[in-house]
Amino acid sequence: MLVPFKDLKSEFKRILLSNGFTESKADEVAIIFAENSRDGVHSHGLNRFPAFIQYVRDGHVIPDAEPVKVGGFGSLEQWDGRYGPGMLNAKFCMNRAIELGNEYGIGCVAIKNTNHWMRGGTYGWQAAEAGMISISFTNTIANMPPWGGVVPRLSNDPLIIAVPRKEGHVVLDMAISQYAIGKLNLYKSRNEQLPLPGGYDKGGNLSIDPAAILESERVLPIGFWKGSGLSLMLDLLATVLSQGRSTATITKAGPEAGISQVFIAIKPIGIKNNELIEQILSYAKSSRPLHEGDDILYPGENTLKTREKSMREGVWVDERIWEKVKNL
Amino acid sequence: MLVPFKDLKSEFKRILLSNGFTESKADEVAIIFAENSRDGVHSHGLNRFPAFIQYVRDGHVIPDAEPVKVGGFGSLEQWDGRYGPGMLNAKFCMNRAIELGNEYGIGCVAIKNTNHWMRGGTYGWQAAEAGMISISFTNTIANMPPWGGVVPRLSNDPLIIAVPRKEGHVVLDMAISQYAIGKLNLYKSRNEQLPLPGGYDKGGNLSIDPAAILESERVLPIGFWKGSGLSLMLDLLATVLSQGRSTATITKAGPEAGISQVFIAIKPIGIKNNELIEQILSYAKSSRPLHEGDDILYPGENTLKTREKSMREGVWVDERIWEKVKNL
Repeated sequence: MLVPFKDLKSEFKRILLSNGFTESKADEVAIIFAENSRDGVHSHGLNRFPAFIQYVRDGHVIPDAEPVKVGGFGSLEQWDGRYGPGMLNAKFCMNRAIELGNEYGIGCVAIKNTNHWMRGGTYGWQAAEAGMISISFTNTIANMPPWGGVVPRLSNDPLIIAVPRKEGHVVLDMAISQYAIGKLNLYKSRNEQLPLPGGYDKGGNLSIDPAAILESERVLPIGFWKGSGLSLMLDLLATVLSQGRSTATITKAGPEAGISQVFIAIKPIGIKNNELIEQILSYAKSSRPLHEGDDILYPGENTLKTREKSMREGVWVDERIWEKVKNL
Repeated sequence: MLVPFKDLKSEFKRILLSNGFTESKADEVAIIFAENSRDGVHSHGLNRFPAFIQYVRDGHVIPDAEPVKVGGFGSLEQWDGRYGPGMLNAKFCMNRAIELGNEYGIGCVAIKNTNHWMRGGTYGWQAAEAGMISISFTNTIANMPPWGGVVPRLSNDPLIIAVPRKEGHVVLDMAISQYAIGKLNLYKSRNEQLPLPGGYDKGGNLSIDPAAILESERVLPIGFWKGSGLSLMLDLLATVLSQGRSTATITKAGPEAGISQVFIAIKPIGIKNNELIEQILSYAKSSRPLHEGDDILYPGENTLKTREKSMREGVWVDERIWEKVKNL
């Protein structure tokens, strides 16, 4: 069903207020959850909201914790998120990286002891709205085996790269696993096969069967050995720069809490930016499409279309989850 | 056959000196080519040397061109490579990024009008040797179709991430295509199939047949749509930050020359770095291996082993190419 954006937001806010959030923090968090659903990222919008509230009730997310600066050197800063809401910490850090980028040309903020930022793209859009290029990433609990191994020891480390653009920002928001666990469960619940290999079955064969992959726990990193290496590097960077908890430490502790993240913002100081961006996008789009009439899309293009549709017609919600949230 | 490192280097130097390189530049370039072979990256060591000399003779690489600073703001600088040797420009830029990183915490150098840097890992090792974390990438000529398209419009944009470590630096050096074109040709020449899908055949089916992929020109980006998006973003970043030539412009002009690159260096200011790095590597290595007795390797681990072996026993060279180079 379709729900107006403002109803979604006010429902989230009501529940947050009754779970220890102050007026302004409840407002900020409610907006982020509602925007994630508005942009079509349901897995980190409405659908994730009940689990987030449970994390708050279980004490893994501390509603009123504020980040504090614990180290730094020039345009590089280290913050402690003190187990506060991940999306508020992330928004704060990206904002700080933007300030540093505006002051120094490039700025980097690393944060430890923070929590799940929900949709990583949120912070790419935030930087782009401020006119800044950004690169950000997070570690997670172990959910992917390293190349050559069969037991999960790497995180799928969502990586976000965003470039501001007048006609619509270009925002890549991708995890290093080929398919998210949520996506595998979705295909499984529909009794559907994946369009492309997403992992291995127990026999070690590449598989498009979501049930077989979930059973083996051998989710595929993008590019096989390449994604495995990339994931390890992002965990190293997030952990070393923030001096925080690695995928190893997070996983051993149990719940996915107290994670590490990095936010880099760069000032696009050139004068030919728009022209160069259009040149690159139009060249990519000029490739002959695989299926006649299909469009080749740039990262973020669909997000913008979904956003406009949601604001015009209402935000699509899963009716059962919406009912559940209204009763929280 | 095996050749001592110093013979490889001196042979390269002799040829460079007779092709317009000054004593010191010939020395620097010869070392980089010899080191690439030493580390087992033959495709960008000896095997690439004849093509590099041809590029010099054709005027695409100008031996004595020096980079000049054309813009900047604090810890972000823009340089013009003036079509000089790509490896010297890259080494210079990484060095400058390291200086900026040491001064500001994080530094970024973007360069336009440069040339192929050969092995990207060279500059990751360089930064790691200087005790710095680094991220660097380059655009290239179009060699990969965007997701949903069938004609190459994206570059495979090698991406290098490196973290310094006492017992051996961790250095990821990967292109965004699943297999390099050189690797596909190698498998084809040996009449071998790829171990994993590397592209599509003309019928649009995922393929492990190198000949079929080379014929269709549909090389696979890592992670399908994800690598396609990542490649586009890296071209955007390299082009916008350097105000240089995009994959579109490079490809339309013909030879792969006058490309754009970015070098980011970050000062690892924490005190727990070694402990955190070992924690992450040992956790990844603790995954049960797929084949009993196999080791799970971190990025750069094999490079170090190959390097030590090359220095002990001699650098492996393809005899025919070595003879060809000696006659240059």
